[in-house]
Amino acid sequence: MSVLLHDLAGADPARRFSPYCWRVRMALAHKGIPHEAVPWRFSERMAIADAGAEKVPVLRHDGRTVFESFRILEYIEDTWPGPPSLFGGEGGRAAARFIAGWADLVTVASAARLVVSDIPRHLRPEDADYFIRTREARYGTTLAALTADRDRQVEAFRKELHPLRAVLRERPWLSGQTAGAADYIAFGGFQWARCVSAFPLLVPDDPVYFWRGRLLDAFDGLARNVPHEDRT
Amino acid sequence: MSVLLHDLAGADPARRFSPYCWRVRMALAHKGIPHEAVPWRFSERMAIADAGAEKVPVLRHDGRTVFESFRILEYIEDTWPGPPSLFGGEGGRAAARFIAGWADLVTVASAARLVVSDIPRHLRPEDADYFIRTREARYGTTLAALTADRDRQVEAFRKELHPLRAVLRERPWLSGQTAGAADYIAFGGFQWARCVSAFPLLVPDDPVYFWRGRLLDAFDGLARNVPHEDRT
Repeated sequence: MSVLLHDLAGADPARRFSPYCWRVRMALAHKGIPHEAVPWRFSERMAIADAGAEKVPVLRHDGRTVFESFRILEYIEDTWPGPPSLFGGEGGRAAARFIAGWADLVTVASAARLVVSDIPRHLRPEDADYFIRTREARYGTTLAALTADRDRQVEAFRKELHPLRAVLRERPWLSGQTAGAADYIAFGGFQWARCVSAFPLLVPDDPVYFWRGRLLDAFDGLARNVPHEDRT
Repeated sequence: MSVLLHDLAGADPARRFSPYCWRVRMALAHKGIPHEAVPWRFSERMAIADAGAEKVPVLRHDGRTVFESFRILEYIEDTWPGPPSLFGGEGGRAAARFIAGWADLVTVASAARLVVSDIPRHLRPEDADYFIRTREARYGTTLAALTADRDRQVEAFRKELHPLRAVLRERPWLSGQTAGAADYIAFGGFQWARCVSAFPLLVPDDPVYFWRGRLLDAFDGLARNVPHEDRT
């Protein structure tokens, strides 16, 4: 198969939980590009070292390697420019980059403070040790302490989603009338959280909840039908 | 003149300081639409009551009235669909709505906590009384107390601008290769702050600072050449 994605996996190889890898998987499905998403773990640095990458996603296509999720989305759009478009033109591409920057702060970084303590139990022991050590150094506290007050903290997180709601109250997708890169980028964080944690980030009366559900259903349930913890 | 904009003004009728009105003024200039931007003050409710609006911007065009800044931008694009486009297509329009939601939180709401105490001195006495009363009720504290720690708080504000930088490190404009609605929407808050406060929101080594400068220069200095306080 000519397209291969190194995709972050847990101890169960079917548990894929990188928000950035999910952006790419949804984009590949959007374009209908046959590919293989192979499991990669934190301890498997050598498997991607040749690409110059230290983490996934890493895409391999016809002898080329691309890393960093937004670059991969651009590579996909430029290499398979036919419809359906991922970005809907240059304006949409620039805006998707903006939404990626926003998602890094909100649907990844802020969401991490609500679910990160649920991640280690899904990892192989050596990966769990690495994960806990590096994240606790980053946060300056234990993962358990970070999420201890999450029932209250989630309210602030939900307020941060205001820009998503502003769009979704008026349109079906962040990309407009059809789903596109902007949707997959913002969705990645929700899917990551759902795959590792039963903690409900969203409540069912939220337009963001409905939008997430439609993305879970997309592409024959690509994102829905994987090992996950959130049952909402 | 067939297009008229009710535009928030201070005691000096040339001091225009609504972040939402600036979004519209830049969009009208982008389309090259001749118009008159007439000063409106908080105490002049009756001047816009016929439109069903309680605040500005309110646009009047050929007997129709439109209010709320994003609706006005959409009206402009749909009424004058010829180039240059404001949104660059439906994907760009949806993304601009997202950026408007983001800007409401960051370049308006977060910026307000840094500059709002500088506003009353630019207002007529009756407007200043109204402004202070309503804002202090909203914030639950005095305006002076709100901005007292701004030299420190501004650091967090600058971090919130990460999504802008993510785009501007790679492209000249939020809208891509040419400026558009996304730029004017995000810019409105910076221009509002600049017109009422000498407090520097941005530092010169920030890509956002350069971008703001290019928007100040646009349309023959439309935004630069108005009464303002920020001298950076």
